[in-house]
Amino acid sequence: MTLRYPNGKKYTPKKTNRSSFRSVTYGNRGMTLEEDINESNKYYRNTNQAIIHKKPTPIQIVSVDYPKRSSAKITEAYFKQPSTTDYNGIFRGKYIDFEAKETKNKTSIPLNNFHTHQVEHMQAVHEHGGISFLIIRFSTLQCTYLYDVTHFVPWFFQEKRKSIPLHDIETNGHLIQESYAPRLDYLQIVEEVYF
Amino acid sequence: MTLRYPNGKKYTPKKTNRSSFRSVTYGNRGMTLEEDINESNKYYRNTNQAIIHKKPTPIQIVSVDYPKRSSAKITEAYFKQPSTTDYNGIFRGKYIDFEAKETKNKTSIPLNNFHTHQVEHMQAVHEHGGISFLIIRFSTLQCTYLYDVTHFVPWFFQEKRKSIPLHDIETNGHLIQESYAPRLDYLQIVEEVYF
Repeated sequence: MTLRYPNGKKYTPKKTNRSSFRSVTYGNRGMTLEEDINESNKYYRNTNQAIIHKKPTPIQIVSVDYPKRSSAKITEAYFKQPSTTDYNGIFRGKYIDFEAKETKNKTSIPLNNFHTHQVEHMQAVHEHGGISFLIIRFSTLQCTYLYDVTHFVPWFFQEKRKSIPLHDIETNGHLIQESYAPRLDYLQIVEEVYF
Repeated sequence: MTLRYPNGKKYTPKKTNRSSFRSVTYGNRGMTLEEDINESNKYYRNTNQAIIHKKPTPIQIVSVDYPKRSSAKITEAYFKQPSTTDYNGIFRGKYIDFEAKETKNKTSIPLNNFHTHQVEHMQAVHEHGGISFLIIRFSTLQCTYLYDVTHFVPWFFQEKRKSIPLHDIETNGHLIQESYAPRLDYLQIVEEVYF
Protein backbone atom coordinates (compact mmCIF):
# COMPACT_ATOMS: atom_id res chain seq x y z
CA MET A 1 0.00 0.00 0.00
CA THR A 2 1.42 3.32 -1.09
CA LEU A 3 0.50 6.36 0.96
CA ARG A 4 1.10 9.72 -0.64
CA TYR A 5 1.04 12.67 1.64
CA PRO A 6 1.35 15.55 2.30
CA ASN A 7 -0.54 15.81 -1.00
CA GLY A 8 -4.13 15.22 0.16
CA LYS A 9 -5.38 14.52 -3.37
CA LYS A 10 -3.88 11.11 -3.70
CA TYR A 11 -4.24 9.90 -0.16
CA THR A 12 -6.09 6.60 0.14
CA PRO A 13 -7.52 5.64 3.52
CA LYS A 14 -6.85 2.17 4.84
CA LYS A 15 -10.16 0.59 5.61
CA THR A 16 -10.64 -3.05 6.45
CA ASN A 17 -13.16 -3.95 3.79
CA ARG A 18 -11.39 -1.96 1.14
CA SER A 19 -7.75 -2.46 1.79
CA SER A 20 -7.31 -5.03 -0.92
CA PHE A 21 -8.85 -2.67 -3.49
CA ARG A 22 -6.97 0.50 -2.91
CA SER A 23 -3.72 1.80 -4.20
CA VAL A 24 -3.13 -1.15 -6.43
CA THR A 25 -0.62 -0.19 -9.04
CA TYR A 26 -1.63 -0.75 -12.59
CA GLY A 27 0.61 -2.50 -15.06
CA ASN A 28 4.05 -1.01 -15.17
CA ARG A 29 2.93 2.54 -14.86
CA GLY A 30 2.32 2.69 -11.14
CA MET A 31 -1.01 4.42 -11.63
CA THR A 32 -4.08 3.64 -9.62
CA LEU A 33 -7.52 3.52 -11.16
CA GLU A 34 -8.38 6.70 -9.28
CA GLU A 35 -5.38 8.51 -10.75
CA ASP A 36 -6.26 7.31 -14.24
CA ILE A 37 -9.84 8.53 -13.88
CA ASN A 38 -8.80 11.86 -12.41
CA GLU A 39 -6.36 12.41 -15.28
CA SER A 40 -9.00 11.40 -17.81
CA ASN A 41 -11.51 13.79 -16.26
CA LYS A 42 -8.97 16.58 -16.43
CA TYR A 43 -8.42 15.78 -20.10
CA TYR A 44 -12.17 15.76 -20.75
CA ARG A 45 -12.53 19.13 -19.04
CA ASN A 46 -9.57 20.67 -20.82
CA THR A 47 -10.90 19.52 -24.18
CA ASN A 48 -14.38 20.68 -23.18
CA GLN A 49 -15.95 17.26 -23.65
CA ALA A 50 -17.42 16.81 -20.17
CA ILE A 51 -17.42 18.35 -16.70
CA ILE A 52 -16.82 15.46 -14.32
CA HIS A 53 -15.08 15.65 -10.95
CA LYS A 54 -14.23 13.32 -8.12
CA LYS A 55 -16.01 14.30 -4.95
CA PRO A 56 -13.83 15.02 -1.92
CA THR A 57 -13.44 12.18 0.57
CA PRO A 58 -15.99 12.66 3.36
CA ILE A 59 -14.31 13.45 6.66
CA GLN A 60 -15.80 13.72 10.11
CA ILE A 61 -14.05 16.57 11.88
CA VAL A 62 -13.71 16.29 15.64
CA SER A 63 -11.22 18.95 16.62
CA VAL A 64 -9.76 22.08 15.03
CA ASP A 65 -7.07 24.51 16.16
CA TYR A 66 -6.79 28.10 15.04
CA PRO A 67 -3.11 28.96 15.33
CA LYS A 68 -3.77 31.95 13.08
CA ARG A 69 -7.09 33.50 12.25
CA SER A 70 -6.73 32.64 8.61
CA SER A 71 -5.62 29.02 8.85
CA ALA A 72 -7.65 26.41 10.64
CA LYS A 73 -5.71 23.25 11.46
CA ILE A 74 -7.71 20.05 11.83
CA THR A 75 -6.14 18.00 14.61
CA GLU A 76 -8.60 15.14 14.89
CA ALA A 77 -10.80 13.73 12.15
CA TYR A 78 -11.95 10.40 10.75
CA PHE A 79 -12.91 8.99 7.40
CA LYS A 80 -16.65 8.63 6.92
CA GLN A 81 -18.42 6.12 4.76
CA PRO A 82 -19.61 7.87 1.60
CA SER A 83 -23.36 7.97 0.99
CA THR A 84 -23.03 8.54 -2.73
CA THR A 85 -20.58 7.63 -5.47
CA ASP A 86 -17.15 9.14 -5.97
CA TYR A 87 -17.67 10.76 -9.38
CA ASN A 88 -20.36 12.81 -11.01
CA GLY A 89 -20.91 15.52 -13.57
CA ILE A 90 -22.32 16.27 -16.99
CA PHE A 91 -21.60 14.83 -20.43
CA ARG A 92 -23.48 15.82 -23.58
CA GLY A 93 -26.19 17.35 -21.44
CA LYS A 94 -26.74 14.18 -19.41
CA TYR A 95 -26.09 13.60 -15.73
CA ILE A 96 -23.28 11.07 -15.18
CA ASP A 97 -22.70 9.31 -11.84
CA PHE A 98 -20.32 6.43 -11.17
CA GLU A 99 -18.17 4.56 -8.72
CA ALA A 100 -14.75 3.07 -9.45
CA LYS A 101 -13.18 0.00 -7.85
CA GLU A 102 -10.19 -2.15 -8.54
CA THR A 103 -9.36 -5.66 -7.47
CA LYS A 104 -6.33 -7.92 -7.66
CA ASN A 105 -8.63 -10.92 -8.03
CA LYS A 106 -8.58 -12.63 -11.40
CA THR A 107 -12.04 -14.16 -11.55
CA SER A 108 -14.46 -11.93 -9.67
CA ILE A 109 -14.92 -8.70 -7.73
CA PRO A 110 -16.08 -9.05 -4.12
CA LEU A 111 -19.34 -7.28 -3.28
CA ASN A 112 -18.09 -6.10 0.12
CA ASN A 113 -16.43 -3.27 -1.77
CA PHE A 114 -19.78 -1.59 -2.17
CA HIS A 115 -22.07 -0.05 0.41
CA THR A 116 -25.84 -0.25 0.37
CA HIS A 117 -26.20 3.54 0.39
CA GLN A 118 -24.02 3.88 -2.67
CA VAL A 119 -25.92 1.22 -4.56
CA GLU A 120 -29.28 2.75 -3.66
CA HIS A 121 -27.95 6.10 -4.79
CA MET A 122 -26.90 4.68 -8.17
CA GLN A 123 -30.26 3.00 -8.58
CA ALA A 124 -32.06 6.28 -7.80
CA VAL A 125 -29.91 8.19 -10.30
CA HIS A 126 -30.83 5.65 -12.94
CA GLU A 127 -34.54 6.00 -12.15
CA HIS A 128 -34.27 9.78 -12.47
CA GLY A 129 -32.87 9.51 -15.97
CA GLY A 130 -29.18 9.79 -15.18
CA ILE A 131 -26.40 7.56 -16.48
CA SER A 132 -24.99 5.44 -13.67
CA PHE A 133 -22.35 2.73 -13.81
CA LEU A 134 -19.31 1.18 -12.23
CA ILE A 135 -15.78 1.31 -13.56
CA ILE A 136 -14.17 -1.96 -12.44
CA ARG A 137 -10.49 -2.68 -12.92
CA PHE A 138 -9.01 -6.16 -12.66
CA SER A 139 -5.52 -4.91 -12.01
CA THR A 140 -3.75 -8.26 -12.32
CA LEU A 141 -5.44 -8.88 -15.66
CA GLN A 142 -4.86 -5.27 -16.70
CA CYS A 143 -8.37 -4.71 -17.93
CA THR A 144 -10.99 -2.18 -16.97
CA TYR A 145 -14.71 -2.41 -17.63
CA LEU A 146 -17.72 -0.13 -17.61
CA TYR A 147 -20.61 -2.02 -16.01
CA ASP A 148 -24.09 -0.49 -15.94
CA VAL A 149 -26.04 -0.11 -12.70
CA THR A 150 -28.88 -2.27 -14.04
CA HIS A 151 -26.51 -5.25 -14.24
CA PHE A 152 -24.87 -4.47 -10.94
CA VAL A 153 -27.95 -4.03 -8.73
CA PRO A 154 -29.27 -7.63 -8.98
CA TRP A 155 -25.83 -8.97 -8.02
CA PHE A 156 -25.62 -6.66 -5.05
CA PHE A 157 -28.99 -7.64 -3.61
CA GLN A 158 -28.80 -11.39 -4.15
CA GLU A 159 -27.46 -13.53 -1.33
CA LYS A 160 -25.99 -16.61 -2.97
CA ARG A 161 -22.65 -15.21 -4.07
CA LYS A 162 -20.34 -12.71 -2.39
CA SER A 163 -18.78 -11.51 -5.61
CA ILE A 164 -19.60 -10.72 -9.22
CA PRO A 165 -17.87 -13.16 -11.57
CA LEU A 166 -15.58 -11.69 -14.20
CA HIS A 167 -17.42 -13.54 -16.96
CA ASP A 168 -20.61 -11.58 -16.23
CA ILE A 169 -18.69 -8.32 -16.37
CA GLU A 170 -17.06 -9.41 -19.63
CA THR A 171 -20.46 -10.35 -21.05
CA ASN A 172 -22.59 -7.43 -19.86
CA GLY A 173 -19.89 -4.82 -19.35
CA HIS A 174 -17.72 -2.98 -21.85
CA LEU A 175 -13.95 -3.03 -22.01
CA ILE A 176 -12.50 0.47 -21.73
CA GLN A 177 -9.61 1.45 -23.98
CA GLU A 178 -6.49 2.84 -22.40
CA SER A 179 -4.20 5.29 -24.08
CA TYR A 180 -1.98 8.25 -23.38
CA ALA A 181 -4.74 10.87 -23.30
CA PRO A 182 -7.24 10.25 -22.02
CA ARG A 183 -5.63 7.46 -20.03
CA LEU A 184 -8.93 5.68 -19.63
CA ASP A 185 -11.41 6.67 -22.31
CA TYR A 186 -14.58 5.67 -20.51
CA LEU A 187 -16.67 8.39 -22.16
CA GLN A 188 -16.16 6.72 -25.51
CA ILE A 189 -18.00 3.71 -24.05
CA VAL A 190 -20.64 5.95 -22.46
CA GLU A 191 -21.22 7.50 -25.87
CA GLU A 192 -21.60 4.10 -27.55
CA VAL A 193 -23.78 2.55 -24.86
CA TYR A 194 -26.07 5.36 -23.73
CA PHE A 195 -26.44 7.73 -26.69
CA MET B 1 -19.77 31.85 14.77
CA THR B 2 -21.24 28.55 15.88
CA LEU B 3 -19.04 25.48 15.57
CA ARG B 4 -20.74 22.14 15.71
CA TYR B 5 -18.52 19.19 16.33
CA PRO B 6 -18.00 16.31 16.76
CA ASN B 7 -20.68 16.12 14.08
CA GLY B 8 -18.63 16.69 10.91
CA LYS B 9 -21.68 17.43 8.77
CA LYS B 10 -22.41 20.83 10.16
CA TYR B 11 -18.88 22.01 10.79
CA THR B 12 -18.12 25.29 9.03
CA PRO B 13 -14.49 26.22 8.56
CA LYS B 14 -13.40 29.70 9.51
CA LYS B 15 -11.76 31.29 6.53
CA THR B 16 -10.82 34.92 6.27
CA ASN B 17 -12.70 35.80 3.15
CA ARG B 18 -15.76 33.87 4.13
CA SER B 19 -16.11 34.42 7.80
CA SER B 20 -18.87 36.98 7.46
CA PHE B 21 -20.93 34.60 5.31
CA ARG B 22 -20.87 31.44 7.29
CA SER B 23 -22.97 30.20 10.11
CA VAL B 24 -25.33 33.13 10.01
CA THR B 25 -28.51 32.14 11.76
CA TYR B 26 -31.67 32.69 9.85
CA GLY B 27 -34.68 34.45 11.35
CA ASN B 28 -35.72 32.97 14.63
CA ARG B 29 -35.11 29.40 13.67
CA GLY B 30 -31.38 29.26 14.11
CA MET B 31 -30.96 27.46 10.81
CA THR B 32 -28.19 28.24 8.40
CA LEU B 33 -28.75 28.30 4.68
CA GLU B 34 -26.69 25.13 4.40
CA GLU B 35 -28.90 23.33 6.90
CA ASP B 36 -32.03 24.49 5.10
CA ILE B 37 -30.70 23.25 1.77
CA ASN B 38 -29.54 19.94 3.21
CA GLU B 39 -32.96 19.37 4.79
CA SER B 40 -34.69 20.34 1.55
CA ASN B 41 -32.49 17.95 -0.41
CA LYS B 42 -33.31 15.17 2.01
CA TYR B 43 -37.00 15.94 1.54
CA TYR B 44 -36.61 15.90 -2.24
CA ARG B 45 -34.82 12.55 -2.08
CA ASN B 46 -37.33 11.02 0.31
CA THR B 47 -40.22 12.12 -1.91
CA ASN B 48 -38.29 10.93 -4.95
CA GLN B 49 -38.34 14.33 -6.66
CA ALA B 50 -34.62 14.80 -7.12
CA ILE B 51 -31.25 13.32 -6.16
CA ILE B 52 -29.16 16.24 -4.99
CA HIS B 53 -26.38 16.10 -2.39
CA LYS B 54 -23.91 18.47 -0.83
CA LYS B 55 -20.35 17.51 -1.68
CA PRO B 56 -18.01 16.86 1.24
CA THR B 57 -15.75 19.73 2.26
CA PRO B 58 -12.38 19.24 0.55
CA ILE B 59 -9.64 18.49 3.06
CA GLN B 60 -5.90 18.23 2.54
CA ILE B 61 -4.63 15.41 4.72
CA VAL B 62 -1.09 15.72 6.04
CA SER B 63 -0.79 13.10 8.73
CA VAL B 64 -2.69 9.96 9.75
CA ASP B 65 -2.33 7.58 12.67
CA TYR B 66 -3.45 3.97 12.70
CA PRO B 67 -4.16 3.16 16.33
CA LYS B 68 -6.13 0.15 15.13
CA ARG B 69 -5.99 -1.43 11.73
CA SER B 70 -9.63 -0.64 11.08
CA SER B 71 -9.73 2.99 12.18
CA ALA B 72 -7.47 5.61 10.69
CA LYS B 73 -7.21 8.80 12.72
CA ILE B 74 -6.35 11.98 10.85
CA THR B 75 -4.10 14.07 13.08
CA GLU B 76 -3.19 16.91 10.75
CA ALA B 77 -5.28 18.28 7.91
CA TYR B 78 -6.34 21.59 6.38
CA PHE B 79 -9.32 22.95 4.55
CA LYS B 80 -8.80 23.28 0.83
CA GLN B 81 -10.43 25.77 -1.48
CA PRO B 82 -13.16 24.00 -3.46
CA SER B 83 -12.71 23.86 -7.23
CA THR B 84 -16.39 23.25 -7.91
CA THR B 85 -19.70 24.16 -6.31
CA ASP B 86 -21.09 22.66 -3.13
CA TYR B 87 -24.22 21.00 -4.51
CA ASN B 88 -25.06 18.91 -7.53
CA GLY B 89 -27.32 16.15 -8.71
CA ILE B 90 -30.22 15.34 -10.99
CA PHE B 91 -33.75 16.75 -11.24
CA ARG B 92 -36.26 15.71 -13.89
CA GLY B 93 -33.45 14.17 -15.90
CA LYS B 94 -31.37 17.37 -15.91
CA TYR B 95 -28.01 17.99 -14.30
CA ILE B 96 -28.29 20.55 -11.49
CA ASP B 97 -25.26 22.36 -10.05
CA PHE B 98 -25.27 25.26 -7.63
CA GLU B 99 -23.51 27.20 -4.92
CA ALA B 100 -25.16 28.72 -1.84
CA LYS B 101 -24.08 31.82 0.06
CA GLU B 102 -25.59 33.99 2.71
CA THR B 103 -24.80 37.54 3.78
CA LYS B 104 -25.84 39.83 6.61
CA ASN B 105 -25.58 42.80 4.25
CA LYS B 106 -28.85 44.47 3.36
CA THR B 107 -28.09 45.97 -0.02
CA SER B 108 -25.58 43.73 -1.82
CA ILE B 109 -23.57 40.51 -1.68
CA PRO B 110 -19.78 40.89 -1.84
CA LEU B 111 -18.08 39.11 -4.71
CA ASN B 112 -15.14 37.98 -2.57
CA ASN B 113 -17.39 35.12 -1.46
CA PHE B 114 -16.82 33.41 -4.77
CA HIS B 115 -13.71 31.89 -6.26
CA THR B 116 -12.73 32.04 -9.91
CA HIS B 117 -12.58 28.24 -10.18
CA GLN B 118 -16.11 27.90 -8.91
CA VAL B 119 -17.43 30.52 -11.28
CA GLU B 120 -15.65 28.97 -14.26
CA HIS B 121 -17.07 25.61 -13.24
CA MET B 122 -20.62 27.00 -13.15
CA GLN B 123 -20.13 28.64 -16.52
CA ALA B 124 -18.85 25.36 -18.01
CA VAL B 125 -21.82 23.44 -16.59
CA HIS B 126 -24.14 25.95 -18.23
CA GLU B 127 -22.36 25.56 -21.57
CA HIS B 128 -22.70 21.78 -21.34
CA GLY B 129 -26.47 22.02 -20.96
CA GLY B 130 -26.70 21.79 -17.18
CA ILE B 131 -28.73 24.03 -14.90
CA SER B 132 -26.42 26.19 -12.81
CA PHE B 133 -27.30 28.94 -10.36
CA LEU B 134 -26.61 30.54 -7.00
CA ILE B 135 -28.84 30.43 -3.97
CA ILE B 136 -28.24 33.72 -2.16
CA ARG B 137 -29.71 34.47 1.23
CA PHE B 138 -29.89 37.98 2.69
CA SER B 139 -30.23 36.77 6.25
CA THR B 140 -31.02 40.13 7.81
CA LEU B 141 -33.79 40.69 5.27
CA GLN B 142 -34.92 37.09 5.60
CA CYS B 143 -35.14 36.45 1.91
CA THR B 144 -33.46 33.92 -0.33
CA TYR B 145 -33.08 34.11 -4.10
CA LEU B 146 -32.22 31.80 -6.94
CA TYR B 147 -29.91 33.67 -9.33
CA ASP B 148 -28.89 32.11 -12.62
CA VAL B 149 -25.24 31.75 -13.62
CA THR B 150 -25.80 33.87 -16.75
CA HIS B 151 -26.66 36.87 -14.56
CA PHE B 152 -23.92 36.13 -12.09
CA VAL B 153 -20.95 35.69 -14.43
CA PRO B 154 -20.88 39.28 -15.83
CA TRP B 155 -20.89 40.65 -12.28
CA PHE B 156 -18.06 38.39 -11.25
CA PHE B 157 -15.77 39.35 -14.09
CA GLN B 158 -16.38 43.13 -14.12
CA GLU B 159 -14.04 45.31 -12.09
CA LYS B 160 -16.07 48.38 -11.16
CA ARG B 161 -18.01 47.00 -8.21
CA LYS B 162 -16.99 44.55 -5.51
CA SER B 163 -20.50 43.32 -4.87
CA ILE B 164 -23.74 42.47 -6.62
CA PRO B 165 -26.49 44.91 -5.64
CA LEU B 166 -29.64 43.41 -4.13
CA HIS B 167 -31.81 45.21 -6.67
CA ASP B 168 -30.23 43.23 -9.51
CA ILE B 169 -30.84 39.98 -7.66
CA GLU B 170 -34.46 41.05 -7.00
CA THR B 171 -34.89 41.94 -10.66
CA ASN B 172 -33.14 39.02 -12.35
CA GLY B 173 -33.37 36.43 -9.58
CA HIS B 174 -36.33 34.58 -8.15
CA LEU B 175 -37.52 34.68 -4.56
CA ILE B 176 -37.60 31.18 -3.05
CA GLN B 177 -40.55 30.22 -0.87
CA GLU B 178 -39.87 28.87 2.60
CA SER B 179 -42.10 26.43 4.39
CA TYR B 180 -41.99 23.50 6.73
CA ALA B 181 -41.13 20.87 4.15
CA PRO B 182 -39.21 21.47 2.09
CA ARG B 183 -37.78 24.30 4.12
CA LEU B 184 -36.50 26.04 1.03
CA ASP B 185 -38.41 25.00 -2.05
CA TYR B 186 -35.83 25.98 -4.63
CA LEU B 187 -36.81 23.21 -7.04
CA GLN B 188 -40.21 24.86 -7.49
CA ILE B 189 -38.32 27.85 -8.91
CA VAL B 190 -36.06 25.62 -10.99
CA GLU B 191 -39.17 24.02 -12.45
CA GLU B 192 -40.71 27.40 -13.31
CA VAL B 193 -37.55 28.96 -14.70
CA TYR B 194 -35.81 26.13 -16.56
CA PHE B 195 -38.55 23.75 -17.70
